[in-house]
Amino acid sequence: MAITVVGSVAFDSIETPAGRRERCLGGAATYFALAASYFTEVRVIAVVGEDFGKRQEAVFQARGIDTRGIEHTAGKSFFWEGSYLDNLNEAKTHITDLNVFAAFEPKIPPAYGDSEFLFLANIDPVLQRRVREAMPNARMVAGDTMNYWIKDHRPALLEVLKGLDVLLINDTEVRMLAGNSNLVQAARAVLAMGPRTLVVKHGEYGATVFHSSSAKGDGAEEPRTFRAPALPLEEVVDPTGAGDSFAGGFFGYLASQPEVTPSAYRHAMFYGSVMGSFACERFGTERMQQLTRQEIDARFLLFRELTHLD
Amino acid sequence: MAITVVGSVAFDSIETPAGRRERCLGGAATYFALAASYFTEVRVIAVVGEDFGKRQEAVFQARGIDTRGIEHTAGKSFFWEGSYLDNLNEAKTHITDLNVFAAFEPKIPPAYGDSEFLFLANIDPVLQRRVREAMPNARMVAGDTMNYWIKDHRPALLEVLKGLDVLLINDTEVRMLAGNSNLVQAARAVLAMGPRTLVVKHGEYGATVFHSSSAKGDGAEEPRTFRAPALPLEEVVDPTGAGDSFAGGFFGYLASQPEVTPSAYRHAMFYGSVMGSFACERFGTERMQQLTRQEIDARFLLFRELTHLD
Repeated sequence: MAITVVGSVAFDSIETPAGRRERCLGGAATYFALAASYFTEVRVIAVVGEDFGKRQEAVFQARGIDTRGIEHTAGKSFFWEGSYLDNLNEAKTHITDLNVFAAFEPKIPPAYGDSEFLFLANIDPVLQRRVREAMPNARMVAGDTMNYWIKDHRPALLEVLKGLDVLLINDTEVRMLAGNSNLVQAARAVLAMGPRTLVVKHGEYGATVFHSSSAKGDGAEEPRTFRAPALPLEEVVDPTGAGDSFAGGFFGYLASQPEVTPSAYRHAMFYGSVMGSFACERFGTERMQQLTRQEIDARFLLFRELTHLD
Repeated sequence: MAITVVGSVAFDSIETPAGRRERCLGGAATYFALAASYFTEVRVIAVVGEDFGKRQEAVFQARGIDTRGIEHTAGKSFFWEGSYLDNLNEAKTHITDLNVFAAFEPKIPPAYGDSEFLFLANIDPVLQRRVREAMPNARMVAGDTMNYWIKDHRPALLEVLKGLDVLLINDTEVRMLAGNSNLVQAARAVLAMGPRTLVVKHGEYGATVFHSSSAKGDGAEEPRTFRAPALPLEEVVDPTGAGDSFAGGFFGYLASQPEVTPSAYRHAMFYGSVMGSFACERFGTERMQQLTRQEIDARFLLFRELTHLD
């Protein structure tokens, strides 16, 4: 099944203990699309400026990603500059220039209309909702958000949550959204806001999926709380985009399956972790651009070994 | 196989979001011994004051723990007061009164001499080493330590590490000991200091075991890096002693096995996580005192389900 993703396509300047890179191709929709492209057909809705040229376009083309929904306008693309010098688990933002993204009005190409899977990356919940409503054929909708929207745009965000099948956020965001520091209680509170399934990303410790009691899969088995590990990595070059790559692996795998069964969810959690771990191995989207399905499946087995009892 | 544990037996006053308790029976050796007692025979070496009476003694007796190595002296027992009001993952220490523990000279009853398993809980590395040398029949020695010894007693600690089969410490301690913030690199550096096996405890995220390349089990299979999850807990009443209970479950299970195989290590990691999770459910050692092997095995299966792919 094809996935349409709406979100940011951006340039990032990144500094980590491993070095510094200027203006890497980045943005949540880019990481997500690249990661998901190893599993299924992907279509992107975004806006870029005049600095997004053939070289950037080629990155999407090489992975067979549909870019007809990337609008080109006058001005500069979204730019982010950040560093991870003290703590690889948390970016310190130096510059956020929204540029053309400030006036983003998602335009959905007619060819995207039959997408059955829709991913609402971390953007203004008002836009997330608008895209969701404009794509009534999407039968499975997942989304992301961040502290800014949780704190200052709560009513709009709550509207989005009502329509989500899967929300993917990190520990801090779950606790902030629920106003509860206990992860299990916070997860239950967030599920009560609408999403049938909640994926909580724990950074280097993996991720946990919680299901609301009504979230039965297509099969007879009841989906259960499940935790996927993250691979302890020898070298984290750049954690930027690891969460979006997780989402791309997770949702891409689900979209590639004939049925979204409880077992498919568990495998999707592992594939999410796998793609998140690859993302950290090089600066920006470098690693996401040049993987093979063989490498992905080899790492899947490594992850499985890591927690498999016998 | 019998385990001898040397460490603190103490009284703890604890405040958490769930409430406050005055002078609970605590101490690393207490948590460890209670947890391990569900798997194997346990013997304790410690020192207590006049405030340790029949009621406290009865807690050990009820679990069949040998207390002949608990020395009773004039004065008060080790006392700790701490709280977890802001962060359940990190205690804030208000009072540490070493009391009789300040002059602790471990005395090993002759009846303990045949212990094949020895656990050196978090005490002065000089004492850890003395006990290890006084128990030459111990064929498997595990130990714990903390930031204080890592920072200010490094030479003595390094001597202890040389003789350890298994070191069990947390993320922060591994990174501090190695002077490296990358977990995998830090683990390798710590293994190079002596321990054949390193268990890194991640608090609510479980634990990872790393083996040095020479650490072959008794079987033909090479032990591999393995991660056990922690159960996402609905309510954490009191995290005090969770790490020591993990160590008790881990080492107790290993000591109960006919051979320390790679598979035994993986199961031990799960049993460690299981005992750590139980410890958090009540104040102090309350939960550790009244478990059944049936409850423990039921939770083991729950943990297995939590990460088992199919």
